[in-house]
Amino acid sequence: MPKIEPKLLKGFRDFLPEQQIARQSMMNTIRTSYESFGFEPLETPVLEYAEILTGKYGDEGDKLMYRFRDNGDRDVAMRYDLTIPLARVVAMNGNMKKPFKRYQMSPVWRADNTQKGRFREFYQCDADIIGSTSPLADAEILALAGNTLIKLGVTDFIIRVNSRAIISAFYDSLSLSESEKASAIRAVDKIDKIGATGVREELIRYQISPDNADAIVAFAETSIDSIANRSDVLKLEQAFPSITPALTELITIIEYATQLAPDTRFIVDFSIARGLDYYTGLIFETNLTKAPEFGAVMAGGRYDGLVGMFANKPMPAVGASIGLDRLYAALEELKLIKVQKSTARALVVNFDESLTDSYLSIASDLRTAGIPTILYFESTDMKKQLSFAHDKDIPFAVIYGPNEAQQGVAIVKDLQKGTQTTVPLKNLVHTLNNN
Amino acid sequence: MPKIEPKLLKGFRDFLPEQQIARQSMMNTIRTSYESFGFEPLETPVLEYAEILTGKYGDEGDKLMYRFRDNGDRDVAMRYDLTIPLARVVAMNGNMKKPFKRYQMSPVWRADNTQKGRFREFYQCDADIIGSTSPLADAEILALAGNTLIKLGVTDFIIRVNSRAIISAFYDSLSLSESEKASAIRAVDKIDKIGATGVREELIRYQISPDNADAIVAFAETSIDSIANRSDVLKLEQAFPSITPALTELITIIEYATQLAPDTRFIVDFSIARGLDYYTGLIFETNLTKAPEFGAVMAGGRYDGLVGMFANKPMPAVGASIGLDRLYAALEELKLIKVQKSTARALVVNFDESLTDSYLSIASDLRTAGIPTILYFESTDMKKQLSFAHDKDIPFAVIYGPNEAQQGVAIVKDLQKGTQTTVPLKNLVHTLNNN
Repeated sequence: MPKIEPKLLKGFRDFLPEQQIARQSMMNTIRTSYESFGFEPLETPVLEYAEILTGKYGDEGDKLMYRFRDNGDRDVAMRYDLTIPLARVVAMNGNMKKPFKRYQMSPVWRADNTQKGRFREFYQCDADIIGSTSPLADAEILALAGNTLIKLGVTDFIIRVNSRAIISAFYDSLSLSESEKASAIRAVDKIDKIGATGVREELIRYQISPDNADAIVAFAETSIDSIANRSDVLKLEQAFPSITPALTELITIIEYATQLAPDTRFIVDFSIARGLDYYTGLIFETNLTKAPEFGAVMAGGRYDGLVGMFANKPMPAVGASIGLDRLYAALEELKLIKVQKSTARALVVNFDESLTDSYLSIASDLRTAGIPTILYFESTDMKKQLSFAHDKDIPFAVIYGPNEAQQGVAIVKDLQKGTQTTVPLKNLVHTLNNN
Repeated sequence: MPKIEPKLLKGFRDFLPEQQIARQSMMNTIRTSYESFGFEPLETPVLEYAEILTGKYGDEGDKLMYRFRDNGDRDVAMRYDLTIPLARVVAMNGNMKKPFKRYQMSPVWRADNTQKGRFREFYQCDADIIGSTSPLADAEILALAGNTLIKLGVTDFIIRVNSRAIISAFYDSLSLSESEKASAIRAVDKIDKIGATGVREELIRYQISPDNADAIVAFAETSIDSIANRSDVLKLEQAFPSITPALTELITIIEYATQLAPDTRFIVDFSIARGLDYYTGLIFETNLTKAPEFGAVMAGGRYDGLVGMFANKPMPAVGASIGLDRLYAALEELKLIKVQKSTARALVVNFDESLTDSYLSIASDLRTAGIPTILYFESTDMKKQLSFAHDKDIPFAVIYGPNEAQQGVAIVKDLQKGTQTTVPLKNLVHTLNNN
């Protein structure tokens, strides 16, 4: 057999234990946060009939999809996001209790350009509320975003909030057509990248009049730092009177969210556009103020028109999505990822072959007590074993030789501090649990 | 747009919260058990270059593989098991510390015949030790299998153990050729399904002499219930003298494993063959004695020739694999799956709109205290909300109306018992945590 070169596909990665331990810990925190709000887990397949997925993400989305004919000549595609499969599940399970709060943390696949630092396999962590139009539902999603980041150890972030209803009311006041509105939303969505001048140029290119382009840019550059400052809110309503009803609703949502997430800073920012066509109300983006280059690490909004599409009946929905890989990279940059090379807390040194039975029984006792334990089996060379434990950041080594056996004790070596203590064998679990 | 029928591909499933909560809890238990033995998590991509995967699972395996040309015309395939990707990872990370103990819990895909109750997307939970030939490593894998099942609540199971070295020594004593050995292993592997007579017929069909076929069947039907019974071991050695060295090693492994997993019953059973060609030493299967129809829910062995294939150098390995979906089905049958419709512990009843701020603050306090809480937002109809909580098996409802507000108390309704108590608002967390 010719030698096959072991290699990975471009845009795909292995996560070795050192990264995977940290990723799992991050996902556990996100899961705990989502569950604390009463979201329930759902899992959908990696493969779907292609017709379920195509046409939902625009031409660009269809082009990036992993789509093929399976062995039974079915036209299938790999999961592209978690929202369309959710819509399918809701349609297929019509009798499901509403509001339905579900989360899903799963990989998705997009054959994207890897030169932009993008991956073709990456995780999304989505939480959505299906079947409620209440502003309380919107508020829960905003609060969830804030509380989840805080649980992950992030302190410096802002949630920038806007509403498609506000944008729409403002564009109506300029008498923009529906297609002009859509073009304007796409242009404004790029403001962080191309700046106000760039957006204005793009609007002109879309045949929007210079006056309207100026008004749109001025509107997009408007924000208020805190809704608690009522005079700022009032000024906004005076500047753009058509948006008052939609703005009032948004402010209610933010007030509710602030009570659920008092440590989170919400900013009303009319430059938030969210490119996707399906948003209908609240839209938001979360930015890390000390690592802005990572962009929106968590984003979402209300999309009342999408989830009902398979069942052909209206089904309100509001949700948030974390780009796990992007957030991981940002937390790594902010030194908020605790790298751990092993989950083991103790290594039982294999010091003397005649004591193998004791090593097995020590390892078994520690494991039964919930202390993850490695029993070394390759050699009786003590130095090699301590160096193995040290390289893996295992905090403690347990040493038990003929002398210790005679006295019924074991030596516990703290590999970080370099200290060691001798304890009766029966106190070993207690000693390790209290260090 | 024409209406698209929402449907799933054959052999693929959604896991709704009711199943997914139980599956996650099961996977958490497995993860904790694997980590207690010092196994570290690894994650590999769903897609690999096809040449990495093909030719490793026999013609049958290649036929069942999801293989296609991606958008860049690369020949790719979906993960078929977790072992070959592990071999690739080990080859690509040559400087990785050995022994390397890794686990991976991930879905794999096989376009199998769904009529046999098989799924095309299913989870494997694998734990493997790479880089050790020590019998202690084999013992750890056996003990891991036993302890993991016990942690999952299974009490009635046996681990049937055999060794390819024993089988090989016995077949050598019959002067079987290598290809006859392979045929005999494949035939014996079916003994649970086709019985001793069926195996004998198959051996004859493979051109094995009737005398040898008789001897092979007699050997395969041999087992000893407990290695502690030395006279049984001695009888075995007298009956099949050629196997003595290999049997001695297997008994050492079982002795070690018994010390690590004292509550597990290990049986030496020469009918265990494991169909896969790659096993070289220990092989084992785990059967649930009260649900034998589910077959081997956890199995594995030593395979010293496989992991080194990409690096072209020897790399010993021993491991175990749980078929999660099969084990889940078996535990369900044994009533060991605790079905939970929601992870929420409390529902805050939305009773009076003027008290919304209080409901938000109560929900926030409970969540902060680690009590997963649903805040109802759809209506103020109390009966509807209590029925929602009841349908979801949420244990407690918190009721707070104008009267309670005036007195600074809340009513905690135990929805299982139907009882209720009134507690000061400041004791609410305490009350819920202690019930």
